[in-house]
Amino acid sequence: MRIPDHIGIIPDGNRRWAQSKGMSKEKGYSSGLKPGIDLFHLCQEFGVRELTFYGFTVDNTKRAKEQRLAFTDACIEAVNMFSKENATLLVLGNTDSPMFPEELLPFTERTVFGNGGMKVNFLVNYGWEWDLNSLKLVGGSGRSIVNHIKSTDISRLDLIIRWGGRRRLSGFLPVQSIYADFFVLEDYWPDFKSEHLLQALNWYNEQDITLGG
Amino acid sequence: MRIPDHIGIIPDGNRRWAQSKGMSKEKGYSSGLKPGIDLFHLCQEFGVRELTFYGFTVDNTKRAKEQRLAFTDACIEAVNMFSKENATLLVLGNTDSPMFPEELLPFTERTVFGNGGMKVNFLVNYGWEWDLNSLKLVGGSGRSIVNHIKSTDISRLDLIIRWGGRRRLSGFLPVQSIYADFFVLEDYWPDFKSEHLLQALNWYNEQDITLGG
Repeated sequence: MRIPDHIGIIPDGNRRWAQSKGMSKEKGYSSGLKPGIDLFHLCQEFGVRELTFYGFTVDNTKRAKEQRLAFTDACIEAVNMFSKENATLLVLGNTDSPMFPEELLPFTERTVFGNGGMKVNFLVNYGWEWDLNSLKLVGGSGRSIVNHIKSTDISRLDLIIRWGGRRRLSGFLPVQSIYADFFVLEDYWPDFKSEHLLQALNWYNEQDITLGG
Repeated sequence: MRIPDHIGIIPDGNRRWAQSKGMSKEKGYSSGLKPGIDLFHLCQEFGVRELTFYGFTVDNTKRAKEQRLAFTDACIEAVNMFSKENATLLVLGNTDSPMFPEELLPFTERTVFGNGGMKVNFLVNYGWEWDLNSLKLVGGSGRSIVNHIKSTDISRLDLIIRWGGRRRLSGFLPVQSIYADFFVLEDYWPDFKSEHLLQALNWYNEQDITLGG
């Protein structure tokens, strides 16, 4: 079976899941933590090399405050959980904004935890405009100007899986998504089960790879 | 019914269609011309304001020569056909490369044909890297450097429809695709029929629009 090197995860549907259970919207995010770790363990078994979770975006922070606090807490908690695993973690997002949680600043350089292994990336206060709109001074004396995206530490995506039924990328790593195969599940993210990943991998296995050639 | 302002068309499956008819691969492209005009007329009736066709990419030009010539000819022919309609045409792509057909150079500035109306864009020898990697001198005396994409004349996409079953963007306008809803049809593009567009519009009508908020 052909296993994707790098899988992107859009864990959508937390709010709709909470409402379907009679809870207020912001209660859904904490129920997305265990699914993340379960998915990670399965991906470890399959030999996936890199996993990127869509945490929250600059756009998302315009939502109601209780939601913003809830998804920010869930991201902090998720990164803390992963720091107890064998993984090489990176948190990427706009750290210049007050919406970036300072608890996650130590993770903005890629760091090995446990025995290392799979790269796991979390997009936290990420924005596609922020990512793409980047001029940088480089070279020995920092005198050359180059135009390069801020997410250069994240590799090309092979497969993107989105929960919650929506068939759109919503600003998820536009450059890395260029050639990615896109699989959508109707179930909400907190209802994650192993079969979801197996369905996505089986489908991916049947796709060709052309990279436009 | 909520009609998308701007629809992106990925007319894939021409080669597989030709093979399924016992023809050689490059014979499929000319059969994609009539579908394009038929789709355009339907979109006119629905009041769509902008339509973008994925012609061919810089990556595609690495294919066998007879295929390259065939899809280039089909693009030239398509633009000529549209110049007899009421439409405002733009051809966008890397004109600095010999792969860009010189017959289409007159269309690289947006031009009104007939009574004008819908904007119709053709991506010809387009490359996502070419599009994004752009520094430009601006301002009265051209002394300011700004970083801006080359496809600024093409607006945000609301809906992308892809024929031929593949669920990926393949480098199609990464910035304009950020929030687009993505609808995939299994049929090959030369087998286009009105029902395809109706299916896509009905599906689009049921989607919410959040733009991340």
